[in-house]
This record gives sequence, C-alpha cells and structure tokens, in this order.
Amino acid sequence: MYSFMNDYSEGAHPRILQALLETNLEQAIGYGLDQFTSEAVQLIKEKIGRQDVDIHLIPGGTQTNLIAISAFLRPHEAVIAPLTGHVEVHETGAIEATGHKIITKEGREGKLSPADIIEAVEFHCDEHMVKPKLVYISNSTEVGSIYTKAELTALGKVCREHNLLLFMDGARLGSALTSTKNDLTLIEIASLVDAFYIGGTKNGALIGEALVIITDSLKEDFRYHIKQKGALLAKGRLLGIQFRELFRDNLFFELAEHANLMAAKIQDTLVALGCPLLLHSPSNQLFPIMPNQVIAELAKDYSFEIQRKADENHSLIRLVTSWATQESAVDEFIEDLKRLL
Amino acid sequence: MYSFMNDYSEGAHPRILQALLETNLEQAIGYGLDQFTSEAVQLIKEKIGRQDVDIHLIPGGTQTNLIAISAFLRPHEAVIAPLTGHVEVHETGAIEATGHKIITKEGREGKLSPADIIEAVEFHCDEHMVKPKLVYISNSTEVGSIYTKAELTALGKVCREHNLLLFMDGARLGSALTSTKNDLTLIEIASLVDAFYIGGTKNGALIGEALVIITDSLKEDFRYHIKQKGALLAKGRLLGIQFRELFRDNLFFELAEHANLMAAKIQDTLVALGCPLLLHSPSNQLFPIMPNQVIAELAKDYSFEIQRKADENHSLIRLVTSWATQESAVDEFIEDLKRLL
Amino acid sequence: MYSFMNDYSEGAHPRILQALLETNLEQAIGYGLDQFTSEAVQLIKEKIGRQDVDIHLIPGGTQTNLIAISAFLRPHEAVIAPLTGHVEVHETGAIEATGHKIITKEGREGKLSPADIIEAVEFHCDEHMVKPKLVYISNSTEVGSIYTKAELTALGKVCREHNLLLFMDGARLGSALTSTKNDLTLIEIASLVDAFYIGGTKNGALIGEALVIITDSLKEDFRYHIKQKGALLAKGRLLGIQFRELFRDNLFFELAEHANLMAAKIQDTLVALGCPLLLHSPSNQLFPIMPNQVIAELAKDYSFEIQRKADENHSLIRLVTSWATQESAVDEFIEDLKRLL
Amino acid sequence: MYSFMNDYSEGAHPRILQALLETNLEQAIGYGLDQFTSEAVQLIKEKIGRQDVDIHLIPGGTQTNLIAISAFLRPHEAVIAPLTGHVEVHETGAIEATGHKIITKEGREGKLSPADIIEAVEFHCDEHMVKPKLVYISNSTEVGSIYTKAELTALGKVCREHNLLLFMDGARLGSALTSTKNDLTLIEIASLVDAFYIGGTKNGALIGEALVIITDSLKEDFRYHIKQKGALLAKGRLLGIQFRELFRDNLFFELAEHANLMAAKIQDTLVALGCPLLLHSPSNQLFPIMPNQVIAELAKDYSFEIQRKADENHSLIRLVTSWATQESAVDEFIEDLKRLL
Repeated sequence: MYSFMNDYSEGAHPRILQALLETNLEQAIGYGLDQFTSEAVQLIKEKIGRQDVDIHLIPGGTQTNLIAISAFLRPHEAVIAPLTGHVEVHETGAIEATGHKIITKEGREGKLSPADIIEAVEFHCDEHMVKPKLVYISNSTEVGSIYTKAELTALGKVCREHNLLLFMDGARLGSALTSTKNDLTLIEIASLVDAFYIGGTKNGALIGEALVIITDSLKEDFRYHIKQKGALLAKGRLLGIQFRELFRDNLFFELAEHANLMAAKIQDTLVALGCPLLLHSPSNQLFPIMPNQVIAELAKDYSFEIQRKADENHSLIRLVTSWATQESAVDEFIEDLKRLL
Repeated sequence: MYSFMNDYSEGAHPRILQALLETNLEQAIGYGLDQFTSEAVQLIKEKIGRQDVDIHLIPGGTQTNLIAISAFLRPHEAVIAPLTGHVEVHETGAIEATGHKIITKEGREGKLSPADIIEAVEFHCDEHMVKPKLVYISNSTEVGSIYTKAELTALGKVCREHNLLLFMDGARLGSALTSTKNDLTLIEIASLVDAFYIGGTKNGALIGEALVIITDSLKEDFRYHIKQKGALLAKGRLLGIQFRELFRDNLFFELAEHANLMAAKIQDTLVALGCPLLLHSPSNQLFPIMPNQVIAELAKDYSFEIQRKADENHSLIRLVTSWATQESAVDEFIEDLKRLL
Repeated sequence: MYSFMNDYSEGAHPRILQALLETNLEQAIGYGLDQFTSEAVQLIKEKIGRQDVDIHLIPGGTQTNLIAISAFLRPHEAVIAPLTGHVEVHETGAIEATGHKIITKEGREGKLSPADIIEAVEFHCDEHMVKPKLVYISNSTEVGSIYTKAELTALGKVCREHNLLLFMDGARLGSALTSTKNDLTLIEIASLVDAFYIGGTKNGALIGEALVIITDSLKEDFRYHIKQKGALLAKGRLLGIQFRELFRDNLFFELAEHANLMAAKIQDTLVALGCPLLLHSPSNQLFPIMPNQVIAELAKDYSFEIQRKADENHSLIRLVTSWATQESAVDEFIEDLKRLL
Repeated sequence: MYSFMNDYSEGAHPRILQALLETNLEQAIGYGLDQFTSEAVQLIKEKIGRQDVDIHLIPGGTQTNLIAISAFLRPHEAVIAPLTGHVEVHETGAIEATGHKIITKEGREGKLSPADIIEAVEFHCDEHMVKPKLVYISNSTEVGSIYTKAELTALGKVCREHNLLLFMDGARLGSALTSTKNDLTLIEIASLVDAFYIGGTKNGALIGEALVIITDSLKEDFRYHIKQKGALLAKGRLLGIQFRELFRDNLFFELAEHANLMAAKIQDTLVALGCPLLLHSPSNQLFPIMPNQVIAELAKDYSFEIQRKADENHSLIRLVTSWATQESAVDEFIEDLKRLL
C-alpha cells in the first residue's frame, strides 16, 4: 500500500533529522529566542531579500492562520476568503473561534479576483455588518492552482485601494514557487502582501511554518499573540533547527520541486489517458475524475482521498505527492493507471 | 556557561531521536490517527492501569491548558487556581482569551487547599458573578512542591461535593511522581481528578503533553477542540513516536528521577551551607535566596532565573535540573557554591 | 414625510406608556426579579399553554440571538442559517464574536428546508470542520414570508433526527402569528422548537424580546449568560411592565394584526397595479420592484429602504408597516401609487 | 417596607416619562441616528465644554464596560482594576468573555493609586504575561468614595507615562460630581481620561449610559462594536429622549444631589450615634457596620443589602439613596436608627 493521501505522510527530510541529532545536547534559550531560530530567520530574510520584515516560526498552519488573523484584526473586522479556503472549510471554525467572520466568495479555481473583493467590500456598507479588512488567499491553493504575478499584483492593488490587508497562506508555498507555471519570487510576494507564510510541515519538516510580517503596523507585540494561543514552543529550537536546514541552501526548493515533478508525471499520464481533471494542476495536488470502478481497483494498492461524487459512476479524487514520494512508486502507479483507465 | 535555566534547554533524549530516525520513512495517516500514536496511547493506558480513559497527545502545555479548559467549561464558568498557577501568571491570558475568568486564591507553597476552594465557591453566590467550575492545580507546582495522596484526595472530595472539575497540569508530573516525597501513583491520580496531563516537553521529548480525560462527560468531540485551537498536528506521528518511546518501558520515569536526583544534590549542599530556601523542594526546581554578590559570581559560569529581590542584598533565584543535566556540571556547581556561600 | 422604513419608527403603544406611568414610583427589585416581570412571564406562559418553559425578557433581538446561541453551543458547534438570516447579514458578526461559525444555505423565500439542513449536516463530516448543532430560522422571515405548520413540523423532525437544536428568531413573530396565511399557534411552535422568542420592539414595545426556552437542558444557569453579555437590565421592570401590558389581553396580537392589515392594503394595490413583488408577502414587510423614477417620486413624501438594483431601470424596495401605521397615511400612499405606477 | 437596596428601585423621573409621552408618535430613524439622540449628544457636549468628543448612548453599564474595553484593546492587552471594581466582581466575567484578563490591585477605599498601576506594569515584563493597557476606575466607586482632582490628575499622568488608557466607569458619576467633597468638573474629567461614561440608569433614567470617547484613536468604527454586542437599540430614541431631558437643564445634577443629600442625612445620624462605617461616604452609598440584632429589626421595615459578617455580632450593610428617595422615608428611617442603635 502506497500513500498519495497527502504531503505529510512521512517524517522529515533526513538532513533535518541529522541536524536535530547534531545539535541535540547544545543548550539553548527557550521560546524561540535560541541561536538556531535566529540563524533560520536570518537565512529566510536573505531568501526574501530584505531585512525589514519580522519572521516568526510557528508549529502549524491552522495555528498560524488563527494567530495572525486574530492579531491583525479588531473585533468587528472580517476576513474575505474563497469558498475553498482552508480557513473556511478545514479549520473547525478556528477563525470564528477568535471572534471573526469569514466572508466567502466563490472565486475561480480556488483563487480570488479583484472583482470578488470589491463585491464583498461594497456589500458590507454599514455598521450593521462586519467590516471586511483582511483578504485570505492560499498559494498554492487548496485545489492545486497558483497565483500569477499579474493576479497577485492586481489583488495587492485592490487591497491597498480599499484599505484591506492581504494575507497569503503558504502552507504549500514551496510547491507554488517551484511550479513550472510560476512567475513569482519570494521577493515579489513580500512586496505585494502584508504577511505570508512559508510552510515547512508539507515540505520536509516535522512541523513548522515561517510567518513573514511585512507591514510595520502588524509587527508590534506579535510574540504575545503566539504565546497566548499556545504556539510558543518551549523548545523553539525544534523549529529553528529545521528551518535553518531547509534554508541553509536550496533544500526547501529542491524538495518542493521533487513533489511537483512527481505530480507532473502522474498528471501527464492522466491527460494522455484522457482522464478528466478538476483543473490542470501546476503543483503537487492532482484532482482527477475517475470511474468508481477504477478508483476501487487503485484503492487496493494506494491510499488517496475520495473527495466527492462527480456523477453516478465517477468520483473526484485527490492525489498528493511530496518531497518523500518515491519515483518508483510513481512509476508503478502510472503503470496501474495505464492498465486501468 | 552551563544552564540551570529550565528543563527544556536541550533537545530530546537520544532514544527518542533514534525512534524518529527509525520510523522516518514509514508512511502514516495524519492528525494523530497514526499507528505510533495508537501504540503510545495504549502504553500510557497500561501505566495508568485502565482502558476507559481518553488520551490525546498535544504539542504544548499552554495549549493543553487552554484547549481542555475551554472545552470543559460553558461561557459563564470559571477556573479556580492558585496565585502561582501557570495559567494565571505565565500564559499571556490564554484562558481569558477563550472567555473564562480565573479566580485566584493565594494557596500555600503553590498548592490549593479544600478551604481555598470552598471560599471561592461561597463567595460566588449568584449570576452577577462567574460560576466556579474547574479547579486547576499543577503537580509538581510552579514552586517545586508536590501534592500528597492525602491532599489530592481531600481536593477530589471537595470538588465532587461542589460539582467542580479537578484538572491537573502535569507539565512536570514526571518530577512529582518520582520525587522521594511522593506517595501518589498514576493510577491514584486518575481516580481523583477529572483530567490531567503527562508532560513530555520538560521530561525528554521535543514537544508533547499527553492529556488524559477520565470523566466521561468531558470526552465527547474532544478532537474538534484540538483542531479548532490549531493543535492537531498534521504529522501527529511526531507526538506518537516520542510518547511511545517514553512509555515503552520506564524511560519517562528514569529521566524524571535523574532530574530530581541532580536537584537534590544541589539542595543538600545549599542546606548544608545554610542557604535559605523559599521552600524545601522535593522535585527538580530549587528556589534558594542568595546574596546578590554570590549570584553575580555564579552568573559568570551558569545561567539561571533571578526571580525577585528578597531584600536589599539578597534575591530569590530558580535553579532547574532536567533529564539532561550532567552530573559533572552539578558537581562543579556544588564546588562553586561551597566556595562562594 | 411619512415613514415606511421599518416597524420601530415610533415609541410605544400608548397603553404601554400608561403602564410605565402608573407603576413608576412602585419600588421593585432589580435585574428582572421584580413583580412586573413575574406577572409578564406568567401571562406569556398562559398564552403558550404550558408552565414548564423558562422565559427571559431581554432588551433586543441581536442580543437575544447572541446570548441564546452562545449559551446553547459548545465552542466547536455551529449554526445553520439561511443566507438572508438576520444573524448572518445584519448583526455585525455578533455570533462569530462569541466564537461560533454560521453555515449558510440559500434556502427559499428566506426559509430553510429539511433538505438544506441534511445537506449541511452531511457536508460537515469530521473534526476538521465545525459541527452543525443549531438551526436558526426567523418567523416571519427577513423577506416577509412565514413558516407553515407543515414546514415547521418537518424542520422539527429533521432537527430531532440529527440531534440539532431548532431556534426561532421571533423578532416579528406577532406579524407571523396574525397573518391570514398562518396556521401555527404559539402552543404548536413551543412543541416544535427548542427555543424561540416573541418580539416586543417591533410590535409596540420600546424595547424587549421574550425568550422562551422549552428544552430542559438549555435552561440551566441562563441568567448568568444574560448578565455576562450585559443584557440584565438593572431596571428589569421596564421589560416586565411592557410585556405584562402586551399579554394582559390580546394587545400583542391586535397590534400585529393592524400592521399586517396595513401591509395587505398596500400589497393588494401593488398587485392590482401589476407591480412585480420579490414574493407575495403574508406579513408586514413588502418587497415591490419599481421603476427608479417612481421610487424617486415616492421618496419625496415617504421614507423607505431601497434594497438593491433589480435591473437598469428598476429597484427592489422594502415597505414596512407597524402597529403605529396610520390608515390615512396608507390610503394616501395608495393614491400616490395609483397615480405613479 | 421601604427600600434602600439600590438606586434603581423606581422607574424614571417624571419629566423623562413626560418626554417619552410627548414624543411618542413622532417618527424617528432607528439605531441612534434619530433627532433626539443628536440633541442629547449636543447637550452633553456642551456640559463637557468641548465638541471634539464622540458620545454614544448605550443601554447599560456592564454593556458599556464590555463594549468599550473590548473595542479599545488588542487580544493580548489587559485591564488594571481595583479588587472592588465592578468589572472584576459583579459582571459575570463579561470582560474575560471578550478575551481580556483583569489584573487586580487591592487599592484603597475602592480607588487605585499611581503606585498600584506602576506595580502592575512592572510585574508584567514580557510576552509570557498579558500586557497591561487600560486602567479601569469607577467614580463614585463601588464603596461610595470619589476621586479628587489631585488623585485623578496623578492617575492620568502615570497612565500617559506608561502608554495606558484611563477609563472611568461613571455609572454613579452624578453622585460623584455633586458630592460636597467633589472638586472635579466634567470638563476636567474629559481632559484627564481617555473615555468615561455618564450613568443614567442610576440617576433617574429607565436605562442608559452616555459613553464619552475623548482620545481620537479610540473613536473609529465604534458603532460597529455597539451593534456587534447587541447594544444598538432599534428604538435608540428611548436613550436619546431620556438624556435630552436629563441634560436639557440641570436635572441630571439635581437628581444626583438629592440622592447625596438623603444619604448625608442618614450618615450624619449614624456618625452621631457612634455607628462605625466602612468609610465616611461622600456620595449616595453608605456602608455602616451594625449589630445583627439591629439589622434584623430594621429589616422588618426596610430592605437593604447585607454585605458580609464583620464579626460574630455585627455585619456590614449597604444603604443606597437615589433621586427618588423620599425625605419622609429617610426621616422615619433616622428615627428608627435613633431608637435601635
């Protein structure tokens, strides 16, 4: 049984484990004030190409979303998110639990457009409604798509015009940035959004997301919020050591590239076999629509998510590859697809 | 420079790192539904001696406190805690951020008595005040003391009589259970409280607290709360593997015993040298009161917390030992104490 | 200028003011424990035909919604509401501010169907999503429609089958119950929902909604929640005296009936004149679609809400009548409609 | 039976009822945008002597406290309050329910000193603790004392020096301002605090507190917060008409003066009779300590609050006078005191 269930089925990249091992008995200060975290932050700043950002390492994605959003907003302010946004669907109301409404727009292929945002802002016209204040987007999105430079530039513009914050969930930012369809750099992202994060958990780390706060007014007292929400690890070194390793060279990008490459191999096969797709994915998540019979056959040897019925005889499934996906397993899977489809 | 700053200055016990290494490429289901977590939970149940409890592995202590307390209480219900309780002092209002007031009682040596609880309950007499519902205690406490069987039995009784939940923060439960002054077992604790947790972070793990829910009415839907607060790790395996290793045999207890032993050696020296103590500690945290001049000398070679001024010329400091504390460092420290005090 | 803007443009029915005057210097206990509130509660219980309900008088509708919903739900539980539901659109995120997500379904004419509810329940399948627990409906709805006995019975059934609470916002319950299309009684409503309220503010009182809690498990400690949210008036008598007057005889129903009658006169005219309606309203809110030019003419003498553009040349407006609407004003308005349409 | 239980035992001052009657059928816009509220706000601004403040009329005191404090603070910021502060004791955790911790200082006679504030600020030294941000005081206090100009000036200074907001709960501000011991004016208060409110409920109105926001940064979007917490009355006119009447001339001050005068008569008698007092009250709340036997006798003809046992044979009681207290009842009470003490 091989799993294409998600990008967090294995542990950490061996170099990360090795780094944990090598530093294990070095004593360090707690709560993210350790030397490893400092170095990691410095390495990430260099990749982003600027020193005037604040970077915080936070254990998980839902946590990063809820801490950032609740820290950035006043009580009456709300989030605009696409219907498929992780904060809307898959976080058990984490944002609402901090007191904030999420306004959803259908979007397109998991992405918001300037028109979506303007519509939300115009609808919320007085104090009887929440005040839209933060636009939440994911890159790559929950359906595998990515934002182009033109799209992100347009979103940034409309946000600035309407006094909105633009926040990018980058749980899968590695896969977005190393997509063959990508034309955005970390440096450009940092110039277009107010805050974003670089996901480690889904790209080779055991845990960890690096939140980058760009806009000055959002920086103050941020560690208070991390602590209050229970995310300031006593052994913050665990996060520091991992991100130091990921960004010491290009490991972070190489791992994401591998995931994309494995997905592309599968997707190319699916396309060649005429299998319909929810969308042509540029990243490490694929959404083919297959006959239920084929799905049942595949499920004998592979695990993956069945998302929903497409019609009486077909279902939409999700296949995810990762830094750890073995090319041999992909090849076997491709052979099975050829046999079954 | 050697650190007696806290019990989380190093990484993890080597056996834990080894276990992470060995299991690293085994694929596992996400979010705590993996095989490692199942095994860990089963091993802990065996140590507790009962199967009818729910166990959840949660990354950190503040997180465990806030998730459990907010899950257990209705909006108008409040916590009773000692003035020194971690939730009151050192969690940035995490409990209040979930909507609940903490009622503090001074207590004695960091511990609550039945009289404290009755006083709090009787004061809060109608709907213009919060309704006390949960008693929060730590074992060992924030000042190093531990609860005796008689004390915990008495607390359990008064809680049941007043329809209160008894919740034990066990971030340092290892040090309590292996104290030479301890007369409580895990089995007995589970019969006296409604929920408690077994701290991994301060006893050899990288992260992780094992929350044990005993009372049936508190069990329902608990994973929703973990997820909503951002504590359901995608790679839940990280927690499972660590606790499996700690409870596979007696490693958890051996590590705590070592910490206590190292503290006892230092404390015996302090006593012999006539150094006053905040209290005679039975666990791995010591609170001596020393001349400022001595503190300044010690600070050249050791790091530790200076808690507060005791008088013009003396201060209260905290010394903490851990599973990783080297006996040779302790011996040197003792020599320095003998020289300076 | 005559206002059809809403049903709270005037003060209180003269009998209510008279009652306030007559009782003014009688001393009474504070916080809703006064004699007037007791009598009001008893009178309402008689109209509902049962003694085993708890009734609380609360100043406003948004307040009643947020207090009841936050008291009834645990942190991970969510509300199902129609897209047009007041809690979703017009309460500035009041429900989310207490920590709970609102799941919206489009519904039909402002109403939810059993299918809507089942869909919401089935979609929310695990702990990564909120758990639907309370169904929020309004009667009459925000677009003037009302629930039939058959519809409410079906909703009650599906809620019981899925362990959901059914909560009815009755800010305009008077207009629903006295509609010529209505086939529900207060007694029947109380047998089908878990809690509902009877709106005073929009039916002749200065302020006040009477929340009726039917299901036993929802009753405990409810006054704590009222107080915590700031809704326990020191002079609770203000609410008691008003509801005592409204339910001493049939005043509450007579006032609502007048409002409906006035609306019906206008609606009959609109229909006769061929003016399209959003829906044929059985209650005191009308939603005609008129040429912008006509709207501009009417706006010279009448105030009302322009809700949205219908097409290039038409808009949807809202006309509301109340207990205080003067028949002479209605007649003049009808004349103007005849002239302009 | 005559009540000295509190200052909200009766309805409203007759002039207020008369004003409600006279304006009853005038149509007005909802939600505080009516002409009456505008006029009331203008009248209050004139009494305060400045136009550059924002004034909002809010139904009740707990509500005003929770709305203002939750609007003014970010999630990690906390309130400093005296142990006797209303927000700490008698609001069912309303502030904590909005997510904020209250740091208590013992204070003296219900009042905070600059030293209390500095102590709280210095203790909270890093992100593991909440960040003190708002100082909550009441004037007159919950034990009847009032702040002098010197005291309030000193508090204002220490708050500005430590970047703290100073917020005054003025539920009984009338009694403070008209005390014979008072040396503060509304104008001066407005120059020393960041926000305060003028209590109507306890000084002749049915409901209503006028919140005055002085500091510009606290003004933005405030109506959103009022609405979100359910305090934006549909018939905002109810608040506007009452405050317009109270501040049209000096009615507000005359009512408070009467309450103080009645209290002073009783207190003078108590002093003359040698009855010990918790403190010599300058306002409308008295706290004598009486033999239990005398209390039992008085309780046959008068209602009042028994606060707590003073010793085996004595208890502390609270006597409150109001705008409505009849001098004849006071005289009889005095006769009874003379007979019994």
